[in-house]
Amino acid sequence: MLMSAPIRVETITLGDELLLGIRENDHLTYLGSQLAHHGIEPAANLVIRDLASDIELFFEASWNRSDLVITTGGLGPTSDDLTRESIAKALNEELIYDVSIESAIRERFSNLGLPMPESNFRQCYRPSSAEVLDNPYGTAPGLFIIKEGKILIMLPGPAREMHPMFEKSVIPRLQREGIFPEVDCYLQIRTAGIGESALAEKVGHLFEGKKGLVVGYCAHAGLVDLRLSSLDGEILSERELQIIADDCRNLLDEDFVCFGDRTLAEVIFRELRPLEKTLAVAESCTGGLLSSHFTEIEGISKVFHGGAVCYHNDAKVQLVDVPESMLEQHGAVSEEVAIAMATGACEKFGADYGLSVTGFAGPAGGSQVLPVGSIFLGYASPVGVWAKKIQLRGDRASNRRRAATAALDWMRRKLRKYKLEEVFAAAESGNFNI
Amino acid sequence: MLMSAPIRVETITLGDELLLGIRENDHLTYLGSQLAHHGIEPAANLVIRDLASDIELFFEASWNRSDLVITTGGLGPTSDDLTRESIAKALNEELIYDVSIESAIRERFSNLGLPMPESNFRQCYRPSSAEVLDNPYGTAPGLFIIKEGKILIMLPGPAREMHPMFEKSVIPRLQREGIFPEVDCYLQIRTAGIGESALAEKVGHLFEGKKGLVVGYCAHAGLVDLRLSSLDGEILSERELQIIADDCRNLLDEDFVCFGDRTLAEVIFRELRPLEKTLAVAESCTGGLLSSHFTEIEGISKVFHGGAVCYHNDAKVQLVDVPESMLEQHGAVSEEVAIAMATGACEKFGADYGLSVTGFAGPAGGSQVLPVGSIFLGYASPVGVWAKKIQLRGDRASNRRRAATAALDWMRRKLRKYKLEEVFAAAESGNFNI
Repeated sequence: MLMSAPIRVETITLGDELLLGIRENDHLTYLGSQLAHHGIEPAANLVIRDLASDIELFFEASWNRSDLVITTGGLGPTSDDLTRESIAKALNEELIYDVSIESAIRERFSNLGLPMPESNFRQCYRPSSAEVLDNPYGTAPGLFIIKEGKILIMLPGPAREMHPMFEKSVIPRLQREGIFPEVDCYLQIRTAGIGESALAEKVGHLFEGKKGLVVGYCAHAGLVDLRLSSLDGEILSERELQIIADDCRNLLDEDFVCFGDRTLAEVIFRELRPLEKTLAVAESCTGGLLSSHFTEIEGISKVFHGGAVCYHNDAKVQLVDVPESMLEQHGAVSEEVAIAMATGACEKFGADYGLSVTGFAGPAGGSQVLPVGSIFLGYASPVGVWAKKIQLRGDRASNRRRAATAALDWMRRKLRKYKLEEVFAAAESGNFNI
Repeated sequence: MLMSAPIRVETITLGDELLLGIRENDHLTYLGSQLAHHGIEPAANLVIRDLASDIELFFEASWNRSDLVITTGGLGPTSDDLTRESIAKALNEELIYDVSIESAIRERFSNLGLPMPESNFRQCYRPSSAEVLDNPYGTAPGLFIIKEGKILIMLPGPAREMHPMFEKSVIPRLQREGIFPEVDCYLQIRTAGIGESALAEKVGHLFEGKKGLVVGYCAHAGLVDLRLSSLDGEILSERELQIIADDCRNLLDEDFVCFGDRTLAEVIFRELRPLEKTLAVAESCTGGLLSSHFTEIEGISKVFHGGAVCYHNDAKVQLVDVPESMLEQHGAVSEEVAIAMATGACEKFGADYGLSVTGFAGPAGGSQVLPVGSIFLGYASPVGVWAKKIQLRGDRASNRRRAATAALDWMRRKLRKYKLEEVFAAAESGNFNI
């Protein structure tokens, strides 16, 4: 877990839609991980309605308990937008008209060739003690208040306005106030194939006695991220942090995925792209998920030729040339078919690498020998062809997701292991010198 | 918006992981939509840490403000699980040992052939005024308290335990207490292709003067759901509600998707399955997403033969027989290629219906005539072949998602429109009688 700095932070998220279960609370996820990056675990997140009395009530309680309060939403131009007024009231402050806000909004509209609408004049008011945070992506300015030794930050609701404002204005401002540590260096190590506690056991001793080091573990979607930040440059320098991170990397060996937050598919993309190697997939139970991991990457067309979703056995024969006799002899969920799908994908798409998944996602299907959750992965590459069996234990949706992740992680490991051999092979064939 | 009943409900969700932005707050989405189904808009959701002092503090404030408080989490057997103790303290109640809880836990373990672990004895304590709610999926019992004219419900944290407990125990219990209306009938109408306000304008007059009718609109992922519930059987009978719903359906015409909450892909599946018709897809920019909409459905293999993810132009030629000359003449993003992909998919997979997507998802690609977001859909069916152009305006991820939804909705409309003709065509060919 995160070692949290001794400051109490609460976030208040406005939104009827959130309370009705219509939309997920992305602001909590975003602000939570932003604060965690800076060594702070928020104490609470309050989701409340766009109701003046509730905003006042919850804000006041939160303000009394906390050192830092961050609100999102309710800064727009309509009569539903009540954050400014309600919080000014709770703070016992007047709303004053700020011409600098007006000219920013005016400029925004004039760039669009439009006059400033009447309703936007409401947004030019701010509590008297508030500083203005620029909003390059919308009309609602952010507001920053220091009062009674505490800090209040009011941010606009739309994520495309709130995120850049948080990163460009709020973080530096909080660093200047000493609320956020001036993190010299922040490093994330992404791992795969190792659980959170096994990871902590494996690398934990590297962090012992390191003053000013903040360590956090985050498990998600089959990966675990290890977050290291140095709280203060004078105690732990950027170089020292990098040394610790490199030690982690060495200890983790092939469970190390990358520094930063690349997806497994991106890691594969970045291995293949410089070598001008290409990839195709053939998938059965994952039914398009494996392909979509690759196709969500910008610029992937240079590497990814395509995929065959061969759900029906005939499709395995027709699209990627799995022999009918093989399907009959070994069944569609088998090592042999997984390999045939991978090699078939290479051939059909004219790609260097082929990756395949075939299995029983459930709830129906499977046998005594191969129950639901039995998945075979196939991999075809210039240096060899492999199959691998995994056994999953979730429901249909989770088995599909995890089978795709397992295939990606397996290919990443293979690429890592056999890269050198491939270079030698290429050198032997005279393609380039080593 | 929902007309909310005059009862104040707050939910308290425990979880450090939520506050650190590691996991999304699914409990808020679940409880919010459950409460909305029963005509209640929750007033607030508090996400707090597993910390005794915070649980006490937030619970006490919430209890003072509300008529109904629902907590999730902190009922497990470990020393981190502090909800029972902290709330008993806030309510000024003793924790008493409940042998009925012990025997339920004992039975659970004995069914697994295991002794009851020492740590689980902690879970046998409950605040003295609490009733026990059975947990068939875990050891933590739910707790239900009526006190000072208010209600408190404590639920376990894991969704697989909390959801069934809410639906099997909490809802009937709250109905008995008159907190949840005894909804005679609850109906959801799923719509596509019409915005929330246009929908309200179109059908709103049907609800005028209907006493006891609760109406809610929920927009998500390109669909809008209309939720109708009758609050009291004596004012608005189930039959009357169904008549209103049927009127909505008639007015909505082809924007009506279904009663209930089927996905667009499920609606298509249920159209094709009884006719024993089959389907294949070919997709470029959606890169596997369209296929995965179908393959997430249990039992889809009877209908869905497979998909070709033809990301590279060569793959369009190789996998679904798009003529190279057509790609050269019209470009990959064109009506002609969309249709060739759909018919090619039918042929290659031996399917009756073919659906295709080709387009520029962005951020790179596109032209002056066909900017990023230009998408062509193709559809091949026994009664005809069509193409359609749509223009999207989001980022890459959103364009991919929305292109897949648009393709599904388009196919759904075509199936609806041409079903009768198809029956005639089949009759003519002598396949069956009408």
